[in-house]
Amino acid sequence: MKIRRSERLIDATNYLLNNPHTLIPLTYFAKRYDSAKSSISEDLGIVKKTFLKRGIGFLETLPGAGGGVIYTPAVSKEVASDFIEEMVEKLTDAKRLLPGGYVYLSDLLGSPDVLRRLGAIIATQYADSKVDAVMTVATKGIPIAQSVASYLNVPFVIVRRDSKITEGSTVSVNYVSGSSSRIEKMELSKRSLPENSRVLVVDDFMKGGGTVSGMEGMIKEFNSELVGVTVFAESPQEVKNLDFETTSLIKVKKIDTDKQKLQVEAGSFLKDIRPDNFS
Amino acid sequence: MKIRRSERLIDATNYLLNNPHTLIPLTYFAKRYDSAKSSISEDLGIVKKTFLKRGIGFLETLPGAGGGVIYTPAVSKEVASDFIEEMVEKLTDAKRLLPGGYVYLSDLLGSPDVLRRLGAIIATQYADSKVDAVMTVATKGIPIAQSVASYLNVPFVIVRRDSKITEGSTVSVNYVSGSSSRIEKMELSKRSLPENSRVLVVDDFMKGGGTVSGMEGMIKEFNSELVGVTVFAESPQEVKNLDFETTSLIKVKKIDTDKQKLQVEAGSFLKDIRPDNFS
Repeated sequence: MKIRRSERLIDATNYLLNNPHTLIPLTYFAKRYDSAKSSISEDLGIVKKTFLKRGIGFLETLPGAGGGVIYTPAVSKEVASDFIEEMVEKLTDAKRLLPGGYVYLSDLLGSPDVLRRLGAIIATQYADSKVDAVMTVATKGIPIAQSVASYLNVPFVIVRRDSKITEGSTVSVNYVSGSSSRIEKMELSKRSLPENSRVLVVDDFMKGGGTVSGMEGMIKEFNSELVGVTVFAESPQEVKNLDFETTSLIKVKKIDTDKQKLQVEAGSFLKDIRPDNFS
Repeated sequence: MKIRRSERLIDATNYLLNNPHTLIPLTYFAKRYDSAKSSISEDLGIVKKTFLKRGIGFLETLPGAGGGVIYTPAVSKEVASDFIEEMVEKLTDAKRLLPGGYVYLSDLLGSPDVLRRLGAIIATQYADSKVDAVMTVATKGIPIAQSVASYLNVPFVIVRRDSKITEGSTVSVNYVSGSSSRIEKMELSKRSLPENSRVLVVDDFMKGGGTVSGMEGMIKEFNSELVGVTVFAESPQEVKNLDFETTSLIKVKKIDTDKQKLQVEAGSFLKDIRPDNFS
């Protein structure tokens, strides 16, 4: 039985969303739907227009024998800006204040909806950066890394502060914890990151930048390259002497634990991202 | 300008995939596409048929004034069975053997593709179980919890073995670690789980069942209910005296560290899931 265009459009949309940043030959769809390549081309033209119009991302067509389509998830600037505004509002709540100048974020970073949007937004920033892996440090950065990795369709690796976890042989680096100015140690399983990888670092909250610097050192130990650093929120504490740029979605500008007040604003994200990265 | 059916189908598919287990009124789509409700009904009929035929899940229509559609992600039995077979093959690799009878899984549990499929498969098992939250213990269970939670569209909560993490006041429970027979402690932030929640527990690897028992105790402390336990892999070690059922996708049947051999087979998943849960 002939497969109708409507069915092809629905199934192809699902397939592309689940296989971002992957070259899919037209012949794959032609076979899947038992349809002519010319029909598939038309289908994908409609998908492309709709993805762009609805802020779902870019569908690029590569011509020729080795060609096909690549879906690149990308949100619109409006979506990113609305998300940041919503998060600023949510974070400006004194109930989130924790001892030591920390802010309670676990409800947000445990919400599928927040993580989906956050992941798509950060993935938009690095859509053209040829990222091979996303790195974070356990445990609060993990959900962000996983979501970003899902939209970039690359693996994520988890650096650990404890060595109890059994992961085989590891590489460890020392770093100066920005918050406590103590020397700490972090470890990454040797087999989890191939050499010469281009690595994106993400985290939930940056205080002094020490943890992020540690991860930069770790990346060097793996003869790999730091592509960029994006954190969900940065604290008012001054970040010193980082030899790389960092992007934040949210900036906690002032924490007054005595008066139980939090002052929160948009971070550098909307300034740091290239305008043509937005869909 | 009139929005064509093809555009509506593509955008609605994306919208439904990003909003599973959520009642969406037809009027929402009618407004979004500036179209008559009768056209929207037809659209959703086509989406429903295609989702079912292609193993994307169920689209249920609730009639009446408060009605609408609910998308329930569900894989087919074939997809689940292929995934399990693929994982059995991947795990039957002596290079994965770690000291202490552990198995290296971080590459699989850091792969977006594996996590997407694993999450959809476990979510299929609990599609009808009215889960309010997914629980796991840091750190290796987190990616599984996040993926399952994303398909069930509920929050996930992370129980921690260390108390260094700043999350405000916590509830702690003791448990007997199955692997070491020592008394250990786990903690969960008080505000992360509301009372009377129905909680699904997931984890990467079950050895003696001690950690899972600890989580069961934690759920009781929050006056909540354990809905089920599903782990990616279970070890050959005997699980004793659990007063609840557990499901595993993979069973590591024998670990011979002397001969460096691993024997792996399918777990109980395909037997435990109700046949009509599959799409």
